[in-house]
Amino acid sequence: MQIEGTAALFARRAPPAGSRPGHFVVPDDAQPTAIRALIFREGHCEERSVTSAEELVEATAAPGVTWIDAVGLGDGSLLHWLRDALGVHPLAVADIAHTGQRPKYEDYGERDLIVVQAVESEDGEGVSIEQVSMIVARDFVVTVTERPLPLFDPVRERVRSGTAMVCRMGADFLTYTLIDTVIDGYFPVVEEIAEVLNDLEDEITERPTEKTLGYLHTVRRTLLAVHRVMYRQRDALGTMMRAEEAPFSAPVRVYLRDAYDHSLQVLDSVESYREMAVGLTDVYLSSMSNRLGEVMKTLTIVSTIFIPLSFIAGVYGMNFEHMPELGWVWGYPAALLLMAVVAGGLLYSFWRRGWLRRRRRYPLDDADGADAER
Amino acid sequence: MQIEGTAALFARRAPPAGSRPGHFVVPDDAQPTAIRALIFREGHCEERSVTSAEELVEATAAPGVTWIDAVGLGDGSLLHWLRDALGVHPLAVADIAHTGQRPKYEDYGERDLIVVQAVESEDGEGVSIEQVSMIVARDFVVTVTERPLPLFDPVRERVRSGTAMVCRMGADFLTYTLIDTVIDGYFPVVEEIAEVLNDLEDEITERPTEKTLGYLHTVRRTLLAVHRVMYRQRDALGTMMRAEEAPFSAPVRVYLRDAYDHSLQVLDSVESYREMAVGLTDVYLSSMSNRLGEVMKTLTIVSTIFIPLSFIAGVYGMNFEHMPELGWVWGYPAALLLMAVVAGGLLYSFWRRGWLRRRRRYPLDDADGADAER
Amino acid sequence: MQIEGTAALFARRAPPAGSRPGHFVVPDDAQPTAIRALIFREGHCEERSVTSAEELVEATAAPGVTWIDAVGLGDGSLLHWLRDALGVHPLAVADIAHTGQRPKYEDYGERDLIVVQAVESEDGEGVSIEQVSMIVARDFVVTVTERPLPLFDPVRERVRSGTAMVCRMGADFLTYTLIDTVIDGYFPVVEEIAEVLNDLEDEITERPTEKTLGYLHTVRRTLLAVHRVMYRQRDALGTMMRAEEAPFSAPVRVYLRDAYDHSLQVLDSVESYREMAVGLTDVYLSSMSNRLGEVMKTLTIVSTIFIPLSFIAGVYGMNFEHMPELGWVWGYPAALLLMAVVAGGLLYSFWRRGWLRRRRRYPLDDADGADAER
Amino acid sequence: MQIEGTAALFARRAPPAGSRPGHFVVPDDAQPTAIRALIFREGHCEERSVTSAEELVEATAAPGVTWIDAVGLGDGSLLHWLRDALGVHPLAVADIAHTGQRPKYEDYGERDLIVVQAVESEDGEGVSIEQVSMIVARDFVVTVTERPLPLFDPVRERVRSGTAMVCRMGADFLTYTLIDTVIDGYFPVVEEIAEVLNDLEDEITERPTEKTLGYLHTVRRTLLAVHRVMYRQRDALGTMMRAEEAPFSAPVRVYLRDAYDHSLQVLDSVESYREMAVGLTDVYLSSMSNRLGEVMKTLTIVSTIFIPLSFIAGVYGMNFEHMPELGWVWGYPAALLLMAVVAGGLLYSFWRRGWLRRRRRYPLDDADGADAER
Amino acid sequence: MQIEGTAALFARRAPPAGSRPGHFVVPDDAQPTAIRALIFREGHCEERSVTSAEELVEATAAPGVTWIDAVGLGDGSLLHWLRDALGVHPLAVADIAHTGQRPKYEDYGERDLIVVQAVESEDGEGVSIEQVSMIVARDFVVTVTERPLPLFDPVRERVRSGTAMVCRMGADFLTYTLIDTVIDGYFPVVEEIAEVLNDLEDEITERPTEKTLGYLHTVRRTLLAVHRVMYRQRDALGTMMRAEEAPFSAPVRVYLRDAYDHSLQVLDSVESYREMAVGLTDVYLSSMSNRLGEVMKTLTIVSTIFIPLSFIAGVYGMNFEHMPELGWVWGYPAALLLMAVVAGGLLYSFWRRGWLRRRRRYPLDDADGADAER
Repeated sequence: MQIEGTAALFARRAPPAGSRPGHFVVPDDAQPTAIRALIFREGHCEERSVTSAEELVEATAAPGVTWIDAVGLGDGSLLHWLRDALGVHPLAVADIAHTGQRPKYEDYGERDLIVVQAVESEDGEGVSIEQVSMIVARDFVVTVTERPLPLFDPVRERVRSGTAMVCRMGADFLTYTLIDTVIDGYFPVVEEIAEVLNDLEDEITERPTEKTLGYLHTVRRTLLAVHRVMYRQRDALGTMMRAEEAPFSAPVRVYLRDAYDHSLQVLDSVESYREMAVGLTDVYLSSMSNRLGEVMKTLTIVSTIFIPLSFIAGVYGMNFEHMPELGWVWGYPAALLLMAVVAGGLLYSFWRRGWLRRRRRYPLDDADGADAER
Repeated sequence: MQIEGTAALFARRAPPAGSRPGHFVVPDDAQPTAIRALIFREGHCEERSVTSAEELVEATAAPGVTWIDAVGLGDGSLLHWLRDALGVHPLAVADIAHTGQRPKYEDYGERDLIVVQAVESEDGEGVSIEQVSMIVARDFVVTVTERPLPLFDPVRERVRSGTAMVCRMGADFLTYTLIDTVIDGYFPVVEEIAEVLNDLEDEITERPTEKTLGYLHTVRRTLLAVHRVMYRQRDALGTMMRAEEAPFSAPVRVYLRDAYDHSLQVLDSVESYREMAVGLTDVYLSSMSNRLGEVMKTLTIVSTIFIPLSFIAGVYGMNFEHMPELGWVWGYPAALLLMAVVAGGLLYSFWRRGWLRRRRRYPLDDADGADAER
Repeated sequence: MQIEGTAALFARRAPPAGSRPGHFVVPDDAQPTAIRALIFREGHCEERSVTSAEELVEATAAPGVTWIDAVGLGDGSLLHWLRDALGVHPLAVADIAHTGQRPKYEDYGERDLIVVQAVESEDGEGVSIEQVSMIVARDFVVTVTERPLPLFDPVRERVRSGTAMVCRMGADFLTYTLIDTVIDGYFPVVEEIAEVLNDLEDEITERPTEKTLGYLHTVRRTLLAVHRVMYRQRDALGTMMRAEEAPFSAPVRVYLRDAYDHSLQVLDSVESYREMAVGLTDVYLSSMSNRLGEVMKTLTIVSTIFIPLSFIAGVYGMNFEHMPELGWVWGYPAALLLMAVVAGGLLYSFWRRGWLRRRRRYPLDDADGADAER
Repeated sequence: MQIEGTAALFARRAPPAGSRPGHFVVPDDAQPTAIRALIFREGHCEERSVTSAEELVEATAAPGVTWIDAVGLGDGSLLHWLRDALGVHPLAVADIAHTGQRPKYEDYGERDLIVVQAVESEDGEGVSIEQVSMIVARDFVVTVTERPLPLFDPVRERVRSGTAMVCRMGADFLTYTLIDTVIDGYFPVVEEIAEVLNDLEDEITERPTEKTLGYLHTVRRTLLAVHRVMYRQRDALGTMMRAEEAPFSAPVRVYLRDAYDHSLQVLDSVESYREMAVGLTDVYLSSMSNRLGEVMKTLTIVSTIFIPLSFIAGVYGMNFEHMPELGWVWGYPAALLLMAVVAGGLLYSFWRRGWLRRRRRYPLDDADGADAER
Repeated sequence: MQIEGTAALFARRAPPAGSRPGHFVVPDDAQPTAIRALIFREGHCEERSVTSAEELVEATAAPGVTWIDAVGLGDGSLLHWLRDALGVHPLAVADIAHTGQRPKYEDYGERDLIVVQAVESEDGEGVSIEQVSMIVARDFVVTVTERPLPLFDPVRERVRSGTAMVCRMGADFLTYTLIDTVIDGYFPVVEEIAEVLNDLEDEITERPTEKTLGYLHTVRRTLLAVHRVMYRQRDALGTMMRAEEAPFSAPVRVYLRDAYDHSLQVLDSVESYREMAVGLTDVYLSSMSNRLGEVMKTLTIVSTIFIPLSFIAGVYGMNFEHMPELGWVWGYPAALLLMAVVAGGLLYSFWRRGWLRRRRRYPLDDADGADAER
């Protein structure tokens, strides 16, 4: 889901109100389903393609730990298989189908549901959020995503190798590894947002334009979206970490604590950036208002000097017959002198008020500008 | 209740202070009461019309599960029947009569009260909120609404069919189904608000008018109303979900958790939209202030150039007899040249300050504007 | 206490710091004390006037339930009687004397103290808050107010009738009834504030004046005062409702839950109105800023058109001897034509920028204005 | 500590980082120490001066309850005596030396530490905050302040009298009495701040100046300081009140609850005033912006009327030879008439826009202004 | 880490998403590792240099308490030694390598991890934050920092002396001492920020410039960073303080409470300063807006006076042949008189509106300015 406007930002696919509980709807444009099963036992990993409910059950029942890695909702067959053949609760299946769920951990007894949201930066074009639904059982994990998730490639590689730590542990450690990968995927995205914010900070301090606030608003919207997802993700991790009878064994719970810690760090950063962005809005508005002040000062100085001078000129442009000054030889120079005196007095008064000191926006001031930045 | 102004938004029908506890008042313009009883048992559903206290008691006592579906408060007879014939607590009856209650779950022993608020969008004319009061007992559910609620039609259909899941479960599952339907009814409304907000976002970024903020204010008010109702709804669901001795059995509590989850999603979205709306207010104000800046800049440029030129013209319009320049052959061209030099110098200084760069609001810039949006 | 300014809003009568704990001060202008005792037992109610400590003890010791209804602090004798003859804790007595207490429930063993704050609207002149102090024992309730409280009249009537529900229950139900009456007294006041806010909303959207924000500020202050009092009231009710060994029996606690629920509704409304008021402040400021923009636009259009024209006139008003145009027959019409061309060009440029479109504030637009309101 | 600027507001005396834990530093300008011991037993009170560690131990060991009332840190001997002779924990001693501690109650076993902060108004010059450190044991209380605290004078008097309630109770009641005195000392200070705020409210509504916001800022800063101290004070009182094995006996805990209640009242008021102050900032800014609007309107009206008139005059001041109007007998009156018509038209258009209605800031409007205030 | 821009402010070194859990990356520019072991037992302290895993194990196994004081991550050997030779959990090792962790206390059984962040002021150039990672075991403490931390020098001295309190206690007291030193290091930094804020307050009240808000923004950013770090530090201290089975013995937990208290004080101050900074933003914006008002008032006064006068002059500069006033002997003086009357009337009207009263920004007003400051 690419974040394009406010409406799309928090969308959730949902069946019409009043539908049968557990009823699910698969979108027409869903990608075809591709299911791989990775079955691993100490030092060994077997990879199969799964194309039917029978193969699915067989793969999950194989000795060792099985990772069913499904991509694409297709025509919904996968979801039916999960519900009917694997015994996944209908509500859990509906949550897999209706992406845009909040991250959560739901205990359904033997087949628990975990939903996390992976985030990927799209080359400065915003972020895209992709739901990763997981069904966690004692010996297998099913992951379902709508589109292929490059984020999981390194994990797939390690599992295939058959020798990594993940291969020596159970399904709970695999689950942790996938969640941790999703969480760690937030760091580069947040860093990218931070850089955009940094650039905006420079722009606002040095040369704000009308569009700057629009950009800032977009950054704030993205931060809001990331914050909202990560906030729920942290809650879900906290629940998993504390659940005594969860599918997670004690040693894996230590690892979950680490993932929880990472989610807190992401949240801390995002919250800090959100506060920075609010502060920048103030700086921007003040900066634009200073610019207006500069414009008005120019107008005032020029008008205030020339309007009285023009008045003097206007007086001696009157056509009265009896204006003795007009006949004087020194009349014209005297009038010019009077004008100069008036202009000089006004300039002096402006100077005293500090209006003539130059706005510092030019080369020599850049150093000062940098000072202000520290 | 259509939301028309702030005062109406949070209205609550209430008896005068100091009334006897449990005293209730039925509004004069209440719709006449229409009561249908849907009695269902595995695979079979019977529908009756109920017009007296006796029929009401009879229907609830019928074997199987009974849904008493009452619409309209009428002359209050229904409420008296509930209190006197069915043994509903007087305070619960008063809460049914005085619509505008906060959503809640109140345990009165055998006849619990659940209040939820259904929301319906009115063709972009705002939202209307309709109280759904439910009396939940072991074998029957009474629902009371002031007006017919189309939202419940699919549930009625499923119950009548006699074969749906709801027919195989108890009164608690029927209660859940109705609550879930009410909660799911918020999604399209929130989506509609999001679209309005999206349009406002475009309008503010591209061509804000004086009225934009008024619209934004209306959207914020609607979001506030939805948030307030849903917030309490979530609390009520949480209480139901956790109550050990509630009318809800363990399997149904799993379903309630799903409804709770949906209420959280609605809340999350509404909160996000509220934050967006606040941010948009800033963008709007900044945009209006930029427009003012543009106006002032135009005034300043024109005045600052022509006021000095007019002054020069004024000087040579003076009628002194001894003004040698006036007699020079090249006097006039020289004066024009002086004016051109002054104007050129001022223009150059404006150009250096960046005041002459064009405001980018015209066709070619729309692409850029779209960039800012991403 | 009428709310007149900020300082008075949250005033509290207090003895000087360092006074003996339990020391109390009665204000000089206290109303004389009038004490009525209402003693009721199933179906029967006796009313007495109480004028001495002995009569007070006698009344409270009478069989049945006694309501000591005291109005006015007088010379403080009542407070001494309560402390010395009835055994009320000195700190509780001090709290009765020093009105402006926060609403609270304090368990002193046999003689508990409940403080609530009743609110009355003063014909749109603001609200007045009146402390109701209650001493609750097993068989009697003492209520003390500084001034007569019309709010309690219906309750007095019901008690006197001897047949109402309140007469069949204990002192705890009477206490509940009084508290409930106080809470329900907030609804009309909040409704009145909502109507004022509604009017302000119309005023701000359609014709804001300089004073509007002052009114809005006053409304916000009143809402703040009501919120603060009700917030504490809710807490006190929560404590009463949950206290196991409180003077409240289980059936009465069900009624207290209803009063608690009402207090939550008042709070919800007040909080919503406070948020609306904050939002209206933004709309107001934006509206005033738009008006300034309209003024500036007028100035800019007129100045920008006429200043260049005046310059042209100024040029041909110069007195150079060698200005060939002056002698041309078509010189004057040509100059006028030049002026018309310049003016036309400027007008066209303003029209393109949308500056000439009319502000929509006149009759025909009222319909649109109403649209914005929805 | 007088509050003079932001930096001083929240200062805390501290030893350099890395010092030995419990290490303390006494400031060079500390007042000399003066220690009085008040030893009281039912109906009798003895007062001694204490000048050595031995006398200190002797006084605390005397039968009855002892109040060691120490003023001034002097050369730190007192602190050494406390630590070495009385067995006070080194960290507690360090907290006494380093004033500016947050209010707190720390259980060190036999010698508990209580820190509260007393506040005194300085004749409208701001507030001063003075730390009161207390060491509470079973039979004695040590209080240490940097400067004499007039607030405690009434308590000293009551103790000396030997007959007050405080003399009949234990060290815990004395501790409560002192804390209560400190808390009650906040009421007059908060009231004084409220009056300043009230004056500012009038000033802002009627005649705001450039300085008003500076004053408001100062009031906000003072409220912030008082809030922060009282907030922690409330927490400390809550801890004391709830601690089961604290030095406080059950009857005294009832009194502590009263002090806790007073601290809540102070907090409520301070929070309300802070919100009022924020609201006033908005009103002020709007008021200043209205004044600017008034200035601009004046400029616009005058300029918009006279600039076109001057243009007409300029046209007929041109020196073209062929300007037939100039020769007409009625030319001059016609030109004047044209000017009058233009001016009248413009005035009518301004009147229609409501720009000519007078700003209501003069005598007759004061009544209205007062209305707005209600 | 020096705080230079927003992006750098909350940076965290992290391995790529999808890495093996516990995988760590050492930056290329890491300082070479220097490890000192301080082994102390009552009254005696031995210091060794550690250069291999064997020496590390030997030092930690020596009788007495050992402080392994490691500076610089070097090529990562230290981290491998910790993990492989000392048995530190891989996740803890990764947290040491990836600086920028949030402060925390993590219980890994025998080898607990504590992360704190030390802060140092950089001569008014901002603050730098340095991660201090600690591995705490029963008999030894390992501290790892990226760069030498002068803050620890006094502690090192005390340990080396062999006689300080820290030498008589266990590893837990040493841990506390180091944490306390880090916390106390915040006080001078916060004080420095407070002084900058104080200067800004003066600047804003007396002579705000365009850059002031930029500086204020920088201060707010720094306060945000300090707040965020200290907030988590306080949480970690709270966890340590409460943990029953932690490495901390009961007497040391009393000391930890003191460190917790200090962290609360830092937080309180930082929060207060943040609120002050927000308030100052308002004062600044209002001050800049007042300046604009002053500029506009000048323009308005000058324009409003001279534009009508120029109009009068323009009228008598018209060249109509039949303008009788032009021929009058007193025409010119009469015109001048008319102009004087008009100017006088306008000045009087401005004076009545209070526009001519001088802005008080000059020497004599400084006293008043100081008043406003109080």
